[in-house]
Amino acid sequence: MSCSEAPKESYVDVLIIGAGPAGVMCANALVQAGVNVRIIDKRPEGLMAGQADGCQPRTLEILHSYDSTLSEKIFRRGEILYKTTFYNPRPGGHGGIQKTSNAVSINAPTARWEYSVNLHQGGIEGVLLEAMAEKGSRVERSTVPTAIELSQLPEDLQNPTAYVAKVTLRNFERAEDDLEIVHAKFILGSDGAHSWVRKTLGISMEGDNTDSIWGVIDMVPDTDFPDFRTKSFIHSDHGTVFIIPRENDMIRVYIQQGLDSVVIDPATGRADKSRTSPEKLMEQGQKILQPYRMEIKDGKVVWWTVYMVGQRVAEKYSTDERAFIAGDACHTHSPKAGQGLNASMGDTHNLAWKVAYVLQGWSPLSLLKTYESERRTYAQELIDFDKSFSKLFSDRPRTEVHQNGVTHEQFLGAFKTASGFTSGMAIRYKPSSIVNDKHQSVAANLVVGERMLPHVFIRAASSQPIEIHDMLPADTRFKILVFAGNMADVADRAKLEALGEELNKPESFMRRYGRSEGGKWQVFDLVCFSAATKDAVDFPEFFRWHWTKALLDDTDMHERFGGGGYAKFGIDEHAGAIVVVRPDGYIGIVVPLEDVAFLGSYFAAFLQ
Amino acid sequence: MSCSEAPKESYVDVLIIGAGPAGVMCANALVQAGVNVRIIDKRPEGLMAGQADGCQPRTLEILHSYDSTLSEKIFRRGEILYKTTFYNPRPGGHGGIQKTSNAVSINAPTARWEYSVNLHQGGIEGVLLEAMAEKGSRVERSTVPTAIELSQLPEDLQNPTAYVAKVTLRNFERAEDDLEIVHAKFILGSDGAHSWVRKTLGISMEGDNTDSIWGVIDMVPDTDFPDFRTKSFIHSDHGTVFIIPRENDMIRVYIQQGLDSVVIDPATGRADKSRTSPEKLMEQGQKILQPYRMEIKDGKVVWWTVYMVGQRVAEKYSTDERAFIAGDACHTHSPKAGQGLNASMGDTHNLAWKVAYVLQGWSPLSLLKTYESERRTYAQELIDFDKSFSKLFSDRPRTEVHQNGVTHEQFLGAFKTASGFTSGMAIRYKPSSIVNDKHQSVAANLVVGERMLPHVFIRAASSQPIEIHDMLPADTRFKILVFAGNMADVADRAKLEALGEELNKPESFMRRYGRSEGGKWQVFDLVCFSAATKDAVDFPEFFRWHWTKALLDDTDMHERFGGGGYAKFGIDEHAGAIVVVRPDGYIGIVVPLEDVAFLGSYFAAFLQ
Repeated sequence: MSCSEAPKESYVDVLIIGAGPAGVMCANALVQAGVNVRIIDKRPEGLMAGQADGCQPRTLEILHSYDSTLSEKIFRRGEILYKTTFYNPRPGGHGGIQKTSNAVSINAPTARWEYSVNLHQGGIEGVLLEAMAEKGSRVERSTVPTAIELSQLPEDLQNPTAYVAKVTLRNFERAEDDLEIVHAKFILGSDGAHSWVRKTLGISMEGDNTDSIWGVIDMVPDTDFPDFRTKSFIHSDHGTVFIIPRENDMIRVYIQQGLDSVVIDPATGRADKSRTSPEKLMEQGQKILQPYRMEIKDGKVVWWTVYMVGQRVAEKYSTDERAFIAGDACHTHSPKAGQGLNASMGDTHNLAWKVAYVLQGWSPLSLLKTYESERRTYAQELIDFDKSFSKLFSDRPRTEVHQNGVTHEQFLGAFKTASGFTSGMAIRYKPSSIVNDKHQSVAANLVVGERMLPHVFIRAASSQPIEIHDMLPADTRFKILVFAGNMADVADRAKLEALGEELNKPESFMRRYGRSEGGKWQVFDLVCFSAATKDAVDFPEFFRWHWTKALLDDTDMHERFGGGGYAKFGIDEHAGAIVVVRPDGYIGIVVPLEDVAFLGSYFAAFLQ
Repeated sequence: MSCSEAPKESYVDVLIIGAGPAGVMCANALVQAGVNVRIIDKRPEGLMAGQADGCQPRTLEILHSYDSTLSEKIFRRGEILYKTTFYNPRPGGHGGIQKTSNAVSINAPTARWEYSVNLHQGGIEGVLLEAMAEKGSRVERSTVPTAIELSQLPEDLQNPTAYVAKVTLRNFERAEDDLEIVHAKFILGSDGAHSWVRKTLGISMEGDNTDSIWGVIDMVPDTDFPDFRTKSFIHSDHGTVFIIPRENDMIRVYIQQGLDSVVIDPATGRADKSRTSPEKLMEQGQKILQPYRMEIKDGKVVWWTVYMVGQRVAEKYSTDERAFIAGDACHTHSPKAGQGLNASMGDTHNLAWKVAYVLQGWSPLSLLKTYESERRTYAQELIDFDKSFSKLFSDRPRTEVHQNGVTHEQFLGAFKTASGFTSGMAIRYKPSSIVNDKHQSVAANLVVGERMLPHVFIRAASSQPIEIHDMLPADTRFKILVFAGNMADVADRAKLEALGEELNKPESFMRRYGRSEGGKWQVFDLVCFSAATKDAVDFPEFFRWHWTKALLDDTDMHERFGGGGYAKFGIDEHAGAIVVVRPDGYIGIVVPLEDVAFLGSYFAAFLQ
């Protein structure tokens, strides 16, 4: 291009800047929802090793909700962690460690998969990139934004169809003056802890560095340490190591660095990788692990780094609900709880369906305010948790000499209570326009604002056992789950017939907001659960609109799966309840079968 | 090409003629084993609908053993059948049917997946074609053989590296005289019931047509029949119908045709599709199904046919162990037991590893004789079973009027005993050079000649629960499963140490036949199972050569899976046993831990 030509200009609904976990989760979700989206990244290719290293149970559920092949690939390519071992100083003060106890790797009884799966960040991103590629969408690499202009005109900002953002892009593989101007309705900065988007938007981070400094090495070990294939927390008189097994026979070793560590640059006070080496880190690790031996097999280091834990959260998550930030751009914390990648993906899983609703014209822009209110609150909770949890990792263990140290029981106790956070199960969104807990009691154990509990039901028509999560795909639809009582009971059935008539009226929320096209609602899915046994297969016509949508709370033909769902969910077998699950799998509201009007007012608050 | 040019000539190790279930199973298995293979088919493209319609439990296990993605795709794309319903004439002789009972769809308690999955034949083949394509291999379509010459020279026939077959190929998309001459070491005719290869080899079929004639329609029904999503056997005074639910809301309806049916061409005595229509068949079906209504939704017939059941088996399965036939080319029977596609895939699953062994020079040509001895015997058993089973489908039900008819109890009883065949679990290969049951008693419940039983163990190093079938991939290796006793017991451990030393000696069968390359045996895999609990993680070095290969017979950390494997397999917890599983998943031999010499002589009989 000659200097005299104007840069190429183009238009897109959503421009995503940064193809890390938050970015690719968002891009895939939007592509799947049919949104016109582009995603750029400065790196010429995807990560091959290192960085964040695992999917927690809730992230596995989320990936699965987009497509079962996503979680299946993670299971197949990663290392599933089942067990944790704890080591502590040998008594006597003569150095060395010994095993104190074993535990499950993750304590999350409600999780569909009660374990984490470890796989390098590029491997996890790769699963989403493959899913995007199948739909014809790819990351534009070697590309950075050089300028963002966001319209200040209220009439633009309040118009979801206006291209309010003007972003200048530069591709490193083209001439320096070969720029592109992209006009976008919405932009997302998912460009990491040092986010250029965040800085350009003038959003500041709140919080501090901590005195917790770690070295990390990914490698295949040559070792006689017996628990090298379990998650191992090792507290010694010489510091702390922990070990996370991963794919391809590798392990990740975290090695604690003291405050006096050489890795801290005295000039900046920051951790500086060039001041140490994998060999020096392993020397420290070896001292901690004695009497066991651990070396790097064939001297091959796959990836390594040093870092200082920062605990910060962005003061806000968007500018005018048109330019958003997500992931590390919003929050940083220690990797001990394994939350970096998981929290980042959770951010954009929360954001994507809301952006899709606004772009489709189904919801007003105000829906997007719930992104910050839900995810920033969670990030703050995560950091509060991280503060206490990561301190336990850095503090010395209690021994005869160090009577003020952390006891194994303290550590173990914290480890157990931490499971809500480390599994992702603890996320509970507070009441808002899309979370209403007024009638919580009708489904006492389905906590409004938390993710829907998994459970197996059987299809009435075929007796096929089916996990309810598999009926709640991330397809941008609200799932109306009607727990109808017992279809073999005349009174219950009459009540359900009446409900069907009510929902089928022109003024019902389903007809008003459902946007039926070709016999299929765009906004809703309707699934009916009878408390009857597998012989009572008949449902009122309105609720068996498709044979896969009528289910029974009974065991399968082999009596191996299913049954007891009403009791587990805290729903009365005759009173029933309607449970509304949001497109992201979180419970939006529960109401009595009789209160369709209240349900209508819930939807009226954010659907148009 | 001008007429004067000589045809193109080429060389290949294995040429497969016919890309139906037997052909694609063989091609994928050989490609995965690294064999140089080509596969041709006369059809210009793969099947889009109809024909064989489901995978039985053993076929699911077999597909899974090649790659877990194969079975996962079948589960995802097909319809899983959980339940069977039985209908019989309403008493009183006034016509109409009523439900008699429900049952599980398949009664096969040892199956890893105790159900069948229904999907049209092209969909099942497609899963294998996709796997082949990932490895760069594709079916050459619109191509037929026009001539086969097989060398008659003993020195050629006894030399596995000789290109004994000369096959002339013609591609319909090229000029008539544009032929190719392919020289192959082995050829396979998997070209269907009217096999050109079989006829050309001069192999005749033995057996007969039966008087069982059926019409078949695939469609989405519009019906008030309540069990249209379960496998339904319907006996009425007007004949028999059975219904098999399948993918995409479709069902397959089989409608019995009487001996006086118009579909029989009086001139030939054969079924002739042109003599009826889907509408006429549905008219018959509707009469049988009364008082229920069933129509073809929107009049759309996806696929239909009529056929007369033939029960035939080829007199032999090969010419000189160099030209083989498989699948429908070898055996035809009624589709009622759902065995056509499954038996066909089983044929070449049996054949492929043997061909690979001979081509690699690991085994003599004589190994290939076991293909016919194992699979032809099975086909005969299948036809014997089919004769009694399909008669029950064709016979009239017993009613007041027809006192000689089949009772529901007779039918139900036959249905239950048929499960071994319909699930694929009943296959038991008789003693031969590769099946030796002399020491059966040391693992009483692992029947030599049958497929290995599934069971969950846990990995010693990580406590990961793992299904033993997942340690028995179809990777052309013999799996040496050492059930070692209890590693926490001093005597048991000493015995295992001694066994390790024995197996590591230069004269041991492992070192003699194992063909170790880069620390990995080409012919064997070695897995060790300790009866100890999950705290006793330490194994002798020889048996923990890789951490994934040392397992424990204990429950996982959540106590949900595993434990009780020794008892299930009938192996004493201290005496132990060595179980050898063939590359195709069938048990070749079991021996006491002390009798390595006998195991050596077993392998010496077919390895070189």
